[in-house]
Amino acid sequence: MNKRLLNIAKQLKPELIHTYLNKDFSIELNNNQPFVIDFSSHYTGFLSLDLDFEGSPVDAPILLKIKFCEHKDELKENSEEYHGWISKSWIQEELIHLDTLPTLLKLKRRYAFRYVKIELIASSNKYKVILKGAHVDAVSSNSVKVNYVGNNSLEKNIDKVALLTLHECMQYEFEDGPKRDRRLWLGDLRLQALTNYYTYKNYDLVRRCLYLFAGVADKDGRVPACVFTSPKVVGDDTFMFDYSLLYVSTLNDYYKHTNDLKTVIDLLPTATRQIELAQNSFTNDIVNDSDVLGWCFLDWNLRLNKQCGAQGVYLLALKGLIELYEAIGKDTKQLIEDQKRKLEASKDFYDETLGIYVSGKDRQISLASNVWMILGNDFPKEKNQQIINNLKSLSPEEIVTPYMYHYYIEALIKSGLLEDARLTMNEYWGAMVNDGADTFYELFNPKNKDESPYGGKAVLSYCHAWSCTPSYLLRKYFIGDHKND
Amino acid sequence: MNKRLLNIAKQLKPELIHTYLNKDFSIELNNNQPFVIDFSSHYTGFLSLDLDFEGSPVDAPILLKIKFCEHKDELKENSEEYHGWISKSWIQEELIHLDTLPTLLKLKRRYAFRYVKIELIASSNKYKVILKGAHVDAVSSNSVKVNYVGNNSLEKNIDKVALLTLHECMQYEFEDGPKRDRRLWLGDLRLQALTNYYTYKNYDLVRRCLYLFAGVADKDGRVPACVFTSPKVVGDDTFMFDYSLLYVSTLNDYYKHTNDLKTVIDLLPTATRQIELAQNSFTNDIVNDSDVLGWCFLDWNLRLNKQCGAQGVYLLALKGLIELYEAIGKDTKQLIEDQKRKLEASKDFYDETLGIYVSGKDRQISLASNVWMILGNDFPKEKNQQIINNLKSLSPEEIVTPYMYHYYIEALIKSGLLEDARLTMNEYWGAMVNDGADTFYELFNPKNKDESPYGGKAVLSYCHAWSCTPSYLLRKYFIGDHKND
Repeated sequence: MNKRLLNIAKQLKPELIHTYLNKDFSIELNNNQPFVIDFSSHYTGFLSLDLDFEGSPVDAPILLKIKFCEHKDELKENSEEYHGWISKSWIQEELIHLDTLPTLLKLKRRYAFRYVKIELIASSNKYKVILKGAHVDAVSSNSVKVNYVGNNSLEKNIDKVALLTLHECMQYEFEDGPKRDRRLWLGDLRLQALTNYYTYKNYDLVRRCLYLFAGVADKDGRVPACVFTSPKVVGDDTFMFDYSLLYVSTLNDYYKHTNDLKTVIDLLPTATRQIELAQNSFTNDIVNDSDVLGWCFLDWNLRLNKQCGAQGVYLLALKGLIELYEAIGKDTKQLIEDQKRKLEASKDFYDETLGIYVSGKDRQISLASNVWMILGNDFPKEKNQQIINNLKSLSPEEIVTPYMYHYYIEALIKSGLLEDARLTMNEYWGAMVNDGADTFYELFNPKNKDESPYGGKAVLSYCHAWSCTPSYLLRKYFIGDHKND
Repeated sequence: MNKRLLNIAKQLKPELIHTYLNKDFSIELNNNQPFVIDFSSHYTGFLSLDLDFEGSPVDAPILLKIKFCEHKDELKENSEEYHGWISKSWIQEELIHLDTLPTLLKLKRRYAFRYVKIELIASSNKYKVILKGAHVDAVSSNSVKVNYVGNNSLEKNIDKVALLTLHECMQYEFEDGPKRDRRLWLGDLRLQALTNYYTYKNYDLVRRCLYLFAGVADKDGRVPACVFTSPKVVGDDTFMFDYSLLYVSTLNDYYKHTNDLKTVIDLLPTATRQIELAQNSFTNDIVNDSDVLGWCFLDWNLRLNKQCGAQGVYLLALKGLIELYEAIGKDTKQLIEDQKRKLEASKDFYDETLGIYVSGKDRQISLASNVWMILGNDFPKEKNQQIINNLKSLSPEEIVTPYMYHYYIEALIKSGLLEDARLTMNEYWGAMVNDGADTFYELFNPKNKDESPYGGKAVLSYCHAWSCTPSYLLRKYFIGDHKND
C-alpha cells in the first residue's frame, strides 16, 4: 500500500450528486399480491417508502418483502431457486418488519433498479396497509448532460442507454455495476474511461482510479484486478493477467486525452512494473497457456482458451508503454527489443492453412484470440480483413460479453471494416435496446438469452460499465468529423 | 379521546433504565450451521453484533438470518411452517444484508430473548465471517431489586421467574409481553398491578395505565381492551366485556394500595361507566350468552362457554365499584340494589344436582364459570369448598392460561383452601420452571405442551405479564405475616 498515491486518490474523491424522484400512490398492499413500482428508468440510490394504514390500529408488525430489479426479467426470478456459485446475497431483496404505521421506511442500503416489487408477507387482518409514496434519492458523481448522437433512432437509443449505463456506474469510483460488484475493476475502468473522454469528460475520476490501483499494488508492484474502497481502501487478492496489463493501456489513454504528464510520470513505474511482471509468464517469448500468473479473463465464454489472447493483450499494453516512454522522452530501446521478440514469437499462433490465429494445444479457434492479435500487432489492414473473413466460415468460439464485443469492434475498425463494425455494434447493443434495456448488461448472448456464467440469472448485473462503449464508438468512429479518426 | 386524562398519562411516562451486557467471541459463522448465543436469562432490548472477517476482502454482501427466542422451543420452530391466524410477523426473525465488514450491526427493533440464533445464509467463499461480540442494551422502566421469597427452592425459583416476568413487561407501560403484543391490555394490567404492589411498588406506572385507558375510552365512555401508544396513543377498537369491567377492579386495587383519592375521584366516572354500559348485555339481570357487547375472554380455552363467568366478572367489578363509592362517601344505594338483583339472578346458573355452576344453554361444566362465581359472590367458605370438590369428579373444561389459573388460585384462597392454592401454584408455575422457564408463559397447558390458540407455537409469548402473579400470591398469602391476610 502506497500511502502517498492513495492520498492523492483520496483528494480526488468526488462528491455524489443527488437527484430526487417522488411517486405518489394510494395503493392497498395485499398479502401475496406484489405491487411493482416502475420508475421508468434505471436509478442507483436509496429508496424510502411512505406507508400508512386504514382500519383498526396496527395490532401486529408488518412484514414486507422488497425486491429491486434493474431488468424486468428479474421480477420473475425466484430467489429461492438461485443456487449459483456467486453469492445469492447479491440479489437485491429485503425482508423488513415495521412495528408501527404510518411510517417512512428509509432503506439504508444503496440499490440499482428500475422496478421495485413490494409484497406484503404478513400483517394482521384488522388493518389495510396503504402505500402512499415512494421516494428515490439517486446518486452519481456525474452531473454532465450529453446530447445523444447517432444516424438513426436505433443508434440514438443505443447512445442514450450507453450514456445512462456510464452515468449510473460513476460513483465514488468507476464501478463495474451498481448492482454487482459495485466496485472498481480494471477491465471495466479502461472502457469507462475511454467513453468518459468522449462524453462526461470527468478526467479527475479516471485519475483517482489510476491512483487507487497504483496505491494498492502488492509488494511486488502488481496491480490487482479490483480495488475495494469501503470500509477502507484495499486491493483485491485477485490478480488477472490481462487486467494488470490493461493498467498500462488505461494510463496511455489517459495521457492521450489529458496531456497530464505529471500523472504519467507519477504512475509510470506502476505501468512499467506490470510489463516487467508479465515476463514471468512467458517461455521463449510465448505466453504460457493456463499458467499465466493469476487469471486471464478476456471474456465470460467459459470454453475460451486464453493463451493467444493473452499474448495479444501483452502486445497492446507494451505498445502503450512505448508510447508513454516516448511521450516523456524515456529510452524505449529495451521495450522495442522485447516487442520485436514477442511479435516474432506471436507468429507461432498463426495457422497458415486456416489463415487465422489459434490458441492452446488444442489449437482453439475463437474470435477473442484473433481480435487480440489484431489489436496487439499492427498487421496491414488486408491481413486483418482476411483473418476476419476466414473466421466467418470456421464457427469460432463466440463472444458473450459487451466487454469483448467492444474489442471485437475495435479490431474491425482497425481492419478498416468501419461499416461491419457499426453493423455489429447496432446488432449487438441494438438487441439489448430491443430487449427493453434502460442500461446495458454485464452479459448478453443474443443466441442464448438465459446464459449466465454464475449458474443463475438472478445475480446478473443489468447495468454494467463495460457495456457503455457505444457512446465512445459512435463519437470516435461513426459520427461526423470523427468518422475517419 | 380525553386530552386532559391523556396529558396526565403522558406526564407519568417513565424513563427506561438501560442495562448493558456484552459477550465476546471469536466464532466463524458457517453457511447453514446456525450459531446460538445463550444470554442465560431473558432480556428485552436491543442487540448489536460485532462482525469481522478473515481472508480475502469481502467481495460479496453477507446475508444473515437472526432469530430471537425467548424459549428454547422457539429455536426449533421453522417460521415457514407457521400458518396460524395471528400474523407471522410476530416471529422475531430478520434477514439482513451487510455490504461491508468489519461492522457493528445495530438492530433497530426491540426484541425479547434469551437466545439469539445467527445463521449465515449467503456470503462468498473468499472470506470467513467472524462473530466477535454481541451486545445487549436491555430496557425496563423498573430498576427495583426484590429479594426472592418462598419456603423452598421451587417457590423461590417460581418467585424469581415471576419477578423477572413482571420486570421485563414494565416498559413505558405495563406490556402484556415484550415479544407479543408489546402492548397494554387491561386483563394483564390488573394482575401486573397487583404483583407490582407487593414487589416493585411502581404506583405511578399503574396510574399512568389507568389514565391511558380512561383517556382512550370511546364516545360512549367504554374502555377498550388495549391501548396503543406508538406512534401515538390510541385505543383499540377491540372491546372485551370482562376486560372493560376489570378496569373497575384495577382502580379499586390501586386505591387500596395507594389511598390516592384524587386519582379515584378523577377516574371514577370511567369506572362507573363500565358498569353502566354492561347493563346492555343483561336480560333479567342475567348476562346474555355469546352476545355480550364485545368479546368475553376469561381464558384461551377455545371451547369455553363464557356466560356464567361473565356474570361473575360483573359481580366482582360491581363489588369494586361499591367499595370505591364507599371510599369517597358516594351514595351506593343504586349499586347495592343492582348487586342484589344480579346475585339473585346468578342462582340460575347453579345446578342443584351437580352442586356447581354451569354455563350456557348446553350447561357446560368449567372451572372458569365456578371460579368467577366464587369471586363474584360471597358464599360461605363451605359452599365454595363443596363447589370445588364437586368439580373434581366432573372433568370440567380446563384452564390453559396462567391468567385464569391466577383467578382459580384466588378462588381457592377465598374458599379457605390455602394449601390447595399453594400446591396448585407450585404445580402449575413449577412445571414451567421445570420446563426451563426464565419468564412465565402466555399459555401453558401441562397436559398439552404443544397447545396454541393461534394455530402454531411460533408466535407464542414466553414472557407474559399475566403469569407474574406467583410473586403476588406468595407475598400476600403464602409467606410469613401475610399468611392470614
